[in-house]
Amino acid sequence: SSKIKIFALNSNKPLAEKIAAAVDVPLGKTSVDRFSDGEIRINIEESIRGDEIFIIQSTSAPVNDNLMELLIMIDALRRASAATINVVIPYYGYARQDRKARSREPITAKLVADMVEKAGADRAIMLDLHAAQIQGFFDIPVDHLMGAPLLADYFLTQGLDKDAVVVSPDHGGVTRARKLAEFLKAPIAIIDKRRPRANVAEIMNIIGSVDGKRCILIDDMIDTAGTITLAAQALMDAGAIEVYASATHPVLSGPAIERIEKSPIKQLVVTDSIQLPEEKQIDKLVQVSVGPLIGDAIKRIHENKPVSPLFTTRFR
Amino acid sequence: SSKIKIFALNSNKPLAEKIAAAVDVPLGKTSVDRFSDGEIRINIEESIRGDEIFIIQSTSAPVNDNLMELLIMIDALRRASAATINVVIPYYGYARQDRKARSREPITAKLVADMVEKAGADRAIMLDLHAAQIQGFFDIPVDHLMGAPLLADYFLTQGLDKDAVVVSPDHGGVTRARKLAEFLKAPIAIIDKRRPRANVAEIMNIIGSVDGKRCILIDDMIDTAGTITLAAQALMDAGAIEVYASATHPVLSGPAIERIEKSPIKQLVVTDSIQLPEEKQIDKLVQVSVGPLIGDAIKRIHENKPVSPLFTTRFR
Ligand SMILES: Nc1ncnc2c1ncn2[C@@H]1O[C@H](COP(=O)(O)O)[C@@H](O)[C@H]1O
Ligand SMILES: Nc1ncnc2c1ncn2[C@@H]1O[C@H](COP(=O)(O)O)[C@@H](O)[C@H]1O
Repeated sequence: SSKIKIFALNSNKPLAEKIAAAVDVPLGKTSVDRFSDGEIRINIEESIRGDEIFIIQSTSAPVNDNLMELLIMIDALRRASAATINVVIPYYGYARQDRKARSREPITAKLVADMVEKAGADRAIMLDLHAAQIQGFFDIPVDHLMGAPLLADYFLTQGLDKDAVVVSPDHGGVTRARKLAEFLKAPIAIIDKRRPRANVAEIMNIIGSVDGKRCILIDDMIDTAGTITLAAQALMDAGAIEVYASATHPVLSGPAIERIEKSPIKQLVVTDSIQLPEEKQIDKLVQVSVGPLIGDAIKRIHENKPVSPLFTTRFR
Repeated sequence: SSKIKIFALNSNKPLAEKIAAAVDVPLGKTSVDRFSDGEIRINIEESIRGDEIFIIQSTSAPVNDNLMELLIMIDALRRASAATINVVIPYYGYARQDRKARSREPITAKLVADMVEKAGADRAIMLDLHAAQIQGFFDIPVDHLMGAPLLADYFLTQGLDKDAVVVSPDHGGVTRARKLAEFLKAPIAIIDKRRPRANVAEIMNIIGSVDGKRCILIDDMIDTAGTITLAAQALMDAGAIEVYASATHPVLSGPAIERIEKSPIKQLVVTDSIQLPEEKQIDKLVQVSVGPLIGDAIKRIHENKPVSPLFTTRFR
């Protein structure tokens, strides 16, 4: 069968290194930099003819640069006669633009899927898409991995499952919270946000019991951290003994870090789907690696075996 | 017939204003900004159902942001039931990546054409493509406008055609130089760069007579301005009385401005295909507007008449 080659672009080289280590192949030789005017210059520095390629690239910020790096790399690999081009997109940017919430809005998550396919990708491997429906935006096969088992592993290893209740910060996230609660053998609670009248502050009602409990908030991504920090405060006000927050994707833009620092959140447990600059790697932050999970998925794809997100965890 | 609507994105609003003025329609209402994490947010603020849309966007630096704005806008307009979507790309970024010069290079100019088409554009209007072959990267109709008549207009109006010789800075640009020379009724000269041995400085031979002449260097774009400033010096050394430089696209990246300031170039005459930040608008720089030219093209497309770059000039 053909050779596996793994190429890292610029969004998340540390994760790419971990994935390559898990698969036990060296990272492919390539340089991805800029011309003087800012245009992306890609140079693949080894033959890849007939090879089974995996590109590792999150479309996190700077999202447009990272997306174009991915598309241009796909183009170069296709023209260099790769056998198959698999794109691993641990964090899929523009995922929240997945429907027309108002008139005359774009559906950028679909546009990006079209671009990736048109550029020449044969398969996509992704992690906790903001909406599972985004899989349907692709006509190529999509493997959709799940971060929750890794997050659960962390809480279990630390003994934090005792007296825990898993809390969904909104109605939309209940399925995700139930999954984590199942792994932790813990009950769930839901935060029910209501705005009594226009221009009046939202009230956070808590459905379920959190008094005297360790609360573990779970979401797919934490961006500006507004909801999650307000939720943490509401849980403390309702008698929680401590609050952990957890999410697959640490977007952490704008005021996020400051809000988390100031909030009662004790620890924020996320994955390394997004590489964070040093100033965002605060003491409260724990990053669990998805490298072994993605590495396993790559090996299974290579061996034509089904891919499941549970293989690397105690929940298999 | 359907209504013309012109929308400006963020790369070059002053040019979009001039185009709208030439067509005599107001710019369409839209907001194009960023979410907290840097993702592009587009909001079309008026109905465009059944309209004939023209989007004005150069894919100049920041090239990836400007390109994504264009693609997302096309997506939003298509989903909002535009009758036709015409994209006006006065400066087409990634044009120099138009072939595999070496193994395993991408052909990004083709990738961009595919993206624009896949997003849903019906027609493209462009100006002095780096290679005319890029028209063939599109399956939709392309109108390819020419900046040379406008540049010639400037030199003629200023009386600079007297004792002038038009100079191509390399072999590849002779056709372009001949066109300008024709408009100015001037002879041409060519700079012949040769590197006698590896690691030895290039020698600039001048083919044609420039002694005692006003030289007008012409290129399609001026990026880092290395070639053009060395050429200007070579022309002065060969007895030119003064040197003007001219190009359609003022890319002007990296050391360009400093090189031009220090060079014997008396004036740099370009178009406004690329909007320049204030610090690049130096005294030596003259920007001729392509607004009326593009406005005319839009009116002729609307009227189903053929488009020619010569309509707005004395060369019609
Ligand atoms: N990058 C972004 N940052 C913040 N909000 C976004 C972003 N992209 C889309 N949205 C908005 O988020 C909403 C969808 O989020 P959700 O309801 O969680 O699926 C839509 O109203 C979008 O306008
Ligand atoms: N943005 C850029 N800046 C500088 N050089 C580039 C850029 N894009 C492509 N090139 C190089 O320019 C050459 C093509 O330019 P040309 O021979 O003038 O068509 C190729 O060797 C490219 O590698």
